[in-house]
Amino acid sequence: MRRDNEMKLGLFLDPAGFHQGAWRDPNAPANGGVDIDLCAHLATLAEGAKFHFVFVADQQAVIYDHAALARMGGNDGFEPITLLSALSSRTHDIGLVGTATTTYYQPFHLARMFASLDHLSRGRAAWNIVTSLSNYEAQNFGEKELPHHDARYARAREFVEVVKALWDTWQDDAFIRDKQSGIYADTTKLHLLNHRGNHFSVRGPLNIARPPQGYPVLVQAGASDAGIAFAAEVAEVVFTAEPSLENGKRYYATIKEKARALGRGDDQTLVMPGIVPIVGRTEQEAFEKLQRLQSYTHIDALIGAAQLWLGSVIDLRSTDLDSLVPEALPQTNFIKSRQKLLLDLAARQKLTWRELIRLISDSRGHRLVVGTPSEIANTMIDVFDQRAADGFNVMPATVPGGLKDFVELVVPELCRRGKFRSRYCGQTLRENLGLKQPLNQFTQAGLSIRP
Amino acid sequence: MRRDNEMKLGLFLDPAGFHQGAWRDPNAPANGGVDIDLCAHLATLAEGAKFHFVFVADQQAVIYDHAALARMGGNDGFEPITLLSALSSRTHDIGLVGTATTTYYQPFHLARMFASLDHLSRGRAAWNIVTSLSNYEAQNFGEKELPHHDARYARAREFVEVVKALWDTWQDDAFIRDKQSGIYADTTKLHLLNHRGNHFSVRGPLNIARPPQGYPVLVQAGASDAGIAFAAEVAEVVFTAEPSLENGKRYYATIKEKARALGRGDDQTLVMPGIVPIVGRTEQEAFEKLQRLQSYTHIDALIGAAQLWLGSVIDLRSTDLDSLVPEALPQTNFIKSRQKLLLDLAARQKLTWRELIRLISDSRGHRLVVGTPSEIANTMIDVFDQRAADGFNVMPATVPGGLKDFVELVVPELCRRGKFRSRYCGQTLRENLGLKQPLNQFTQAGLSIRP
Repeated sequence: MRRDNEMKLGLFLDPAGFHQGAWRDPNAPANGGVDIDLCAHLATLAEGAKFHFVFVADQQAVIYDHAALARMGGNDGFEPITLLSALSSRTHDIGLVGTATTTYYQPFHLARMFASLDHLSRGRAAWNIVTSLSNYEAQNFGEKELPHHDARYARAREFVEVVKALWDTWQDDAFIRDKQSGIYADTTKLHLLNHRGNHFSVRGPLNIARPPQGYPVLVQAGASDAGIAFAAEVAEVVFTAEPSLENGKRYYATIKEKARALGRGDDQTLVMPGIVPIVGRTEQEAFEKLQRLQSYTHIDALIGAAQLWLGSVIDLRSTDLDSLVPEALPQTNFIKSRQKLLLDLAARQKLTWRELIRLISDSRGHRLVVGTPSEIANTMIDVFDQRAADGFNVMPATVPGGLKDFVELVVPELCRRGKFRSRYCGQTLRENLGLKQPLNQFTQAGLSIRP
Repeated sequence: MRRDNEMKLGLFLDPAGFHQGAWRDPNAPANGGVDIDLCAHLATLAEGAKFHFVFVADQQAVIYDHAALARMGGNDGFEPITLLSALSSRTHDIGLVGTATTTYYQPFHLARMFASLDHLSRGRAAWNIVTSLSNYEAQNFGEKELPHHDARYARAREFVEVVKALWDTWQDDAFIRDKQSGIYADTTKLHLLNHRGNHFSVRGPLNIARPPQGYPVLVQAGASDAGIAFAAEVAEVVFTAEPSLENGKRYYATIKEKARALGRGDDQTLVMPGIVPIVGRTEQEAFEKLQRLQSYTHIDALIGAAQLWLGSVIDLRSTDLDSLVPEALPQTNFIKSRQKLLLDLAARQKLTWRELIRLISDSRGHRLVVGTPSEIANTMIDVFDQRAADGFNVMPATVPGGLKDFVELVVPELCRRGKFRSRYCGQTLRENLGLKQPLNQFTQAGLSIRP
């Protein structure tokens, strides 16, 4: 069913390194998140290895408590859209995926910024659609708490609909710029939106030409029921956390099936779970690397991160960390699916809180693969071949070292085994991912709304 | 009173060219606003000439009617924050001024994006604070009309207060990143904001380190009474339209006096009016250039632009264009001061509507200087020496030609006459403009608010 037999790769771009201890690595850069040269170096390494994209995660807040912040790398870094805009000038082929929340932006802003990024990069932009995960975000925008899970998804759905329509307000060939006749724009190819919905009223048009990709690629990471339904509807790349092969296969099949039911092809919803590779010349060397990173972490930071990813339903600072994690905990309004994934893991492996917290620090629930290049390649190929993934979002435990190891040792192994291409086949991110160019909805419908 | 006797220069970066006919110039680029190489070329030309900054204007809408759009360059270009982020990677010394509205953004977003741009550019960011000028903007954000003038300024004032405080939430030396001890951040230097105001509730902190400049440079273009009061309070660079020397001197004196009354030094509020230079080897050649540009314009586009800058209080499409402009017209809720400036000009010169519309197309009410390099330099030096300006926002009528003419012919003349420096004296935009680095307000007040 796959058009080709090659996996897709993204780089989860975290200038502090993905492992919580990474910033203390002797080779880690000293100035943390606000080092554009480091970010460009990482993007360039990934581009040299022909990764499909770099991916920048985001929240609209500092989401940890003071005790954690003292000991934790990050929280001082670039805003994604500005960072990716800068990287568009420092790279040539690699896709640029930025995370932005539908809960605290307005559709006009995001439609415009991602269109602008798509033009700046000549067709390499993608938007990772999120609905926010912390009440601290709500509190930076005048609210006490996040809206309810369903309300956030309802807003997200309308938000994406408006954004797509804004991208369509000028047809691809609306700007003629004919110096001879003096006609700059063919206004029969300009479509007002005049959207009136439950959440937004937006007149349009957008004040930028239609993006080179039609729409920037849409990425989403739905894992709850509402999230999966939304992903099947809109996501062209599905980012997910999936450490178990069986669950991964089930998730993969569910996404494809739901997308197919909506008339979307299997190759138009690419499932790309995260993977945290720790590469050694021997398995032992790899495990020693992990242990060294673990030794760099502090319990205050571990608890802070765990508190987030467990959905803040328990106060870990006043819990006996050597007690077993209970099988059930109160449901949360956010990070629902990650909480469930982590608690399931803890139950299956009968973990104590301390063990679960350590696991979160190592991988946040993503697949951790510690071993030699060929062991890591084997695991990736297995997950790919068994249809639990169309590719991976690679989360180097340290930077730049962990990324260098991966591109120099694991990628060549994947290429040798015919599972990864060694060149960019297209001009745009869409072309490189094998995704269709979306038609303009106003053209399709034959609409031409004039004021 | 001036610390030095050198003027400041900014480039008003408009990839279509400032004159409405510019896009039809045979040497104008063919692909309009979404050409990053052109924008980088213009910024690099300005940087080569040691301009202090490039300036990108903005509205959050297409603000012209269909008839005008058909014939008018622009409306298809980059969003400013993303554009300047890309340019931060293509330039090294020049300042990057982006326009963003306080009426339709949230303070957390702008605080974060401009902080990010300041880090990306290593201290070259500036924010041009505007309150929006068209109901079309309102209609992209769920409103029918812009809020009332006073309400917009009240929101802007609180907005800027919140943004500054967010920039202060981490002290400059809060991020220690000490690998040895494992302390990443000194959280005694982290200050929550917990702002509760009339317009915004914002907890903070910002999730990025304090900007290299403390605050990005603040630019504002207040010209109404409320605008001038606001500029005197917050603006470090005041952008203005001022075609007459006498009015310019009065405006300049007013700004300095009001700023002084608030304890701000004269050299901390730099008044920089726009100037549209059209350079020829002879005066006649320059006038022929202007006439050629005028011949490229179409009445539909001229009317569309005039309609905007006159504040939409009259329907020009059903007005006899050869009748005299009346002395008074209904006051508007936006572009108040520009409307007044243009109507005063028309009254003084007894212009017909057609003549006024032509004038708007040539310069939008900014100072148009048509002549030889030394004539243009003379005018600039006169305005500067007579204290009607600390420098100029240069608006090349065409690009890249008009900018090339200016940097190759006029700038050397200004340098020869000791009115413009031939090198960057500092690392940051603040240093280059002679502006003070703002202290952290939490440090000053000795506050350390902990949760």
